[in-house]
Amino acid sequence: MGKPDYGKFFASRINYMYPSPVREAVAKIAYKSKIKPIISFAAGEPDPEVLPRDIYANLAAEIFRKVPKIVNYAPAEGVLDLREEIAKFMKEYEGVETSYEKVIVTVGGSQALDIVARVLLEPGDIVITENPSYVNTLLCWRHYGVQLTGVEMDEKGMRTDKLEEKIKELKNKGRLVKLIYTIPTGQNPSGITMNLERRKHLLEIASKYDILVVEDTAYNHLVYEEVPVKPLRSMDKEGRVIYAGSFSKVLGTGLRVGWLEAPEEVIEKVRYSKQPMDMCAPVPSQYIVLEVLRRKMFGDIKMRAIEAYKHKRDLMLKALDTHLPELKHTRPVAGMFILLWLPEKIESYAFADVLLEKYDVAVIPAARFFLGEEGRNVIRLNFSMAKPNLIDEGVKRIAKLVGELAEQV
Amino acid sequence: MGKPDYGKFFASRINYMYPSPVREAVAKIAYKSKIKPIISFAAGEPDPEVLPRDIYANLAAEIFRKVPKIVNYAPAEGVLDLREEIAKFMKEYEGVETSYEKVIVTVGGSQALDIVARVLLEPGDIVITENPSYVNTLLCWRHYGVQLTGVEMDEKGMRTDKLEEKIKELKNKGRLVKLIYTIPTGQNPSGITMNLERRKHLLEIASKYDILVVEDTAYNHLVYEEVPVKPLRSMDKEGRVIYAGSFSKVLGTGLRVGWLEAPEEVIEKVRYSKQPMDMCAPVPSQYIVLEVLRRKMFGDIKMRAIEAYKHKRDLMLKALDTHLPELKHTRPVAGMFILLWLPEKIESYAFADVLLEKYDVAVIPAARFFLGEEGRNVIRLNFSMAKPNLIDEGVKRIAKLVGELAEQV
Repeated sequence: MGKPDYGKFFASRINYMYPSPVREAVAKIAYKSKIKPIISFAAGEPDPEVLPRDIYANLAAEIFRKVPKIVNYAPAEGVLDLREEIAKFMKEYEGVETSYEKVIVTVGGSQALDIVARVLLEPGDIVITENPSYVNTLLCWRHYGVQLTGVEMDEKGMRTDKLEEKIKELKNKGRLVKLIYTIPTGQNPSGITMNLERRKHLLEIASKYDILVVEDTAYNHLVYEEVPVKPLRSMDKEGRVIYAGSFSKVLGTGLRVGWLEAPEEVIEKVRYSKQPMDMCAPVPSQYIVLEVLRRKMFGDIKMRAIEAYKHKRDLMLKALDTHLPELKHTRPVAGMFILLWLPEKIESYAFADVLLEKYDVAVIPAARFFLGEEGRNVIRLNFSMAKPNLIDEGVKRIAKLVGELAEQV
Repeated sequence: MGKPDYGKFFASRINYMYPSPVREAVAKIAYKSKIKPIISFAAGEPDPEVLPRDIYANLAAEIFRKVPKIVNYAPAEGVLDLREEIAKFMKEYEGVETSYEKVIVTVGGSQALDIVARVLLEPGDIVITENPSYVNTLLCWRHYGVQLTGVEMDEKGMRTDKLEEKIKELKNKGRLVKLIYTIPTGQNPSGITMNLERRKHLLEIASKYDILVVEDTAYNHLVYEEVPVKPLRSMDKEGRVIYAGSFSKVLGTGLRVGWLEAPEEVIEKVRYSKQPMDMCAPVPSQYIVLEVLRRKMFGDIKMRAIEAYKHKRDLMLKALDTHLPELKHTRPVAGMFILLWLPEKIESYAFADVLLEKYDVAVIPAARFFLGEEGRNVIRLNFSMAKPNLIDEGVKRIAKLVGELAEQV
C-alpha cells in the first residue's frame, strides 16, 4: 500500500488536542537565548538556584545505595511510606484529616488532573473553571471532549455569585454541571487568592447543586502574606472535594511528584485507572521526596523559597507601579504570577513576539488561559524565576514597547 | 445535599477499568512475605541485585550538583540530548535509522503505549494482539473502548496465517482493523520470540490491509541465544511501525524512562497529547539514562543482565524438565518469562492461591493475559528476579501441588 494516510488512523479526540502556548513560547525563548541574553518572565516554576540541589545530590546517592527497591516498580498507588508521609503532610500543612488509603502518588500535579478526567469526564460533560484558568488543565481536559465554561474572577477570586448564576442558567437548559475546577491559592495565571468567604460559598453551591470540586493546590505553599485562607478540602464535610497536590513548586518540577487525595469511592477507580497508564510514578523521585518529608526538611526549603520569591514579587510590583502605573495588573499574595492587562488595542501574541525580538524580554501571552476572547490583550509575568537585578529593567522595556505601540495606534 | 452518590459522576469508561491481576497477586505476595520467606516467580522486572545501583548513586550525586536544569521541567518531548542519544541507540542496537525529532521520551514503555492509544484509538476500533498478550496494554487500551482480538501463537511467534484469516474475516463483516500490537521478542507473558519469516509476513499483511503496527520492544535487549531477528521497525519501509521503547528491563523499572518512536505525522499528535498529560517524564531519571548512554555504559550493564538471567532461565528450564516433564511450557530465548500449562482441570487462580498459602511459592495466574478462556490453566513464571539457589526448590513445590491436585481430580 505504500505510506499510510495517517489522518484516517487518528482518534477523533485529536481534534481537541492543541499545543501548549506556554511550551511554544518557551521553545522560542530558548532558541533566542542561545543567541543573546534574555530577561525572562516566561517561566512557570521555581528558581533552580533556590532549590536545594545539594541536598538532593546527597539523598539520591544515599538512597540508590541503601534502598534496592528504588530501581524497581513501586505500587501503582505510590511508595507506601510516601503515601503515609503525604497524609501527615496534609494534616500538618493543610489542616486536612485523611489517611494514606485516600492518597495516590502521581507524575506531578499534571497527571493527577489527567487521571481525574480519565475517571470522571466524558464527551458533553460540563466543567466550570475560573476564567482565566490554568492552560494545561484546559488543554488536557479538552482531550476528553468536555465543555469548559468560565466564571469571571475579581481580586477575591472566582465570583461565586456568577458561578451560581451560570449553574442555574445551565440547569434551566437541562444541562447539569459535573465539576468545578479551581486553583484557590495563587492561581495560575492570575496570581489571585480566593478569600475565605468565597471558598465557603463555593462549597455551599457545590453541595446545593450536587457538583464535585477539583481543588488544584499547586501554589498552596508559596504564600507571601498572612491571609486567613484554608484549603477547600479542609472545610469539605460532604466528600465533594478532590484534592490535587504537588511538590513541584517548592521541591522542583523536574522530580515529577504530585498526588491525588479523594474520597475512597473515587480513589478506587483512580487506582484501577492509573495502574496501566504508567505502572507507577518515578521511584527515585518518590524516595527523594519521602526523605525530605521524613527528615523534616520541607519547612526550611519552603521558607527559603518564600523569602526569595516574595522579594522578587515586591520588585516586580514596584516596577509595574513605577513604569506602567496606568495599566491594570493583579497583586498576588501567593504563587508565581502577575497578570498584566495591556491597552485594549494591543494583541498579546504579537506584543510578546516583538518584545522578545526587539527588547529581549520574554513574557507569556495569556489569551489561551481565557475561555473566551477577553484575554486578547493580557500577558502573564512570572517572578519566581526572574533575576532580581533584571526585574526593573525588564518591566521598563515592556513599558517602552507599550508606549511605542500606543503612539502608533 | 450530603455525601454525593459518586456512581453518577463517573465516566462510562470506568466500566472498562479493571485492576491488574499482576499487581493484585504482587500485593498478596508482599503481604505474605512479611510473615514468612517466599520463593517468588511472580515478578516482571530485573533483579535489583544485578542493576548497577552504585553507578546510579554516583551519577545522581554528580548531575544534581552540575545540572541546574535537572530540577526543572524538561521539554514535553524529553531532554533534547537524551532524544539524540536514543536515536543513536536505535541505530546501534536496533539497526533503525531515525532522528531525535521522531523520538518522545515517556514515563516508561507503559506511558508510550497509553499515548499511542490516546492519539489513535477510540470506541469500536479493532486492535489485534498476540494471544496471550501483555496484560497492562490490554487493560490500558480497554479504557479507550476498543475491541481487542487475539491471534494464537506457536513457538515461532504470532501465527501470521491466522492473523490474515482474522483480518479477512473481519473485513467480510465490514470491520476494518486499525492496529496490530505485538511484542516480537521475549514476549510477555509467553517468552516467545517471533522468527524473521513471521516478522516479514506480519509487515506484508499490515501493508496489504493498510494497518498500523505497534511494536513493543521492552525485551529486545535481553536475548540469550544467537537468533537472527531484527525489530519490525528496522524492516518497515512504509512508515507503518510505531516503536515503543523502554530502558526498564536493562536499567531498572523504577526510573520510568521509555520512549516512543514513530512517523513524524504521528509524533506531532503525540507531542500535543503528551504536554498536558504530565508536562514531562521525570528529569533526574532522564539525566541518569542520558549519562549511562553517553558514557557508553549500557553495553556492559546489558551484558551483566544477560549473563545473570540466562543462568536463571537455564536453571528454571532444567527444573521444569526434571520435575514436570509431562507439562507443556515455553522455552524462551529472550525476556523474563516462561508460560506453563497446568493439567486442563486445574484453574490457575486457585492454584496460585493454594501454592502461596501451602507451599510459599508465588506465581502469576496467566488467565487475564489471554483474550478468551484458553488461559484458565496457565501460569506465568518469572526467572529474572528469582534466587538461583531456590529455583529448583520452587519448581519442585509446583510439581508437588500439581501431583496432589491430579490425584484429587
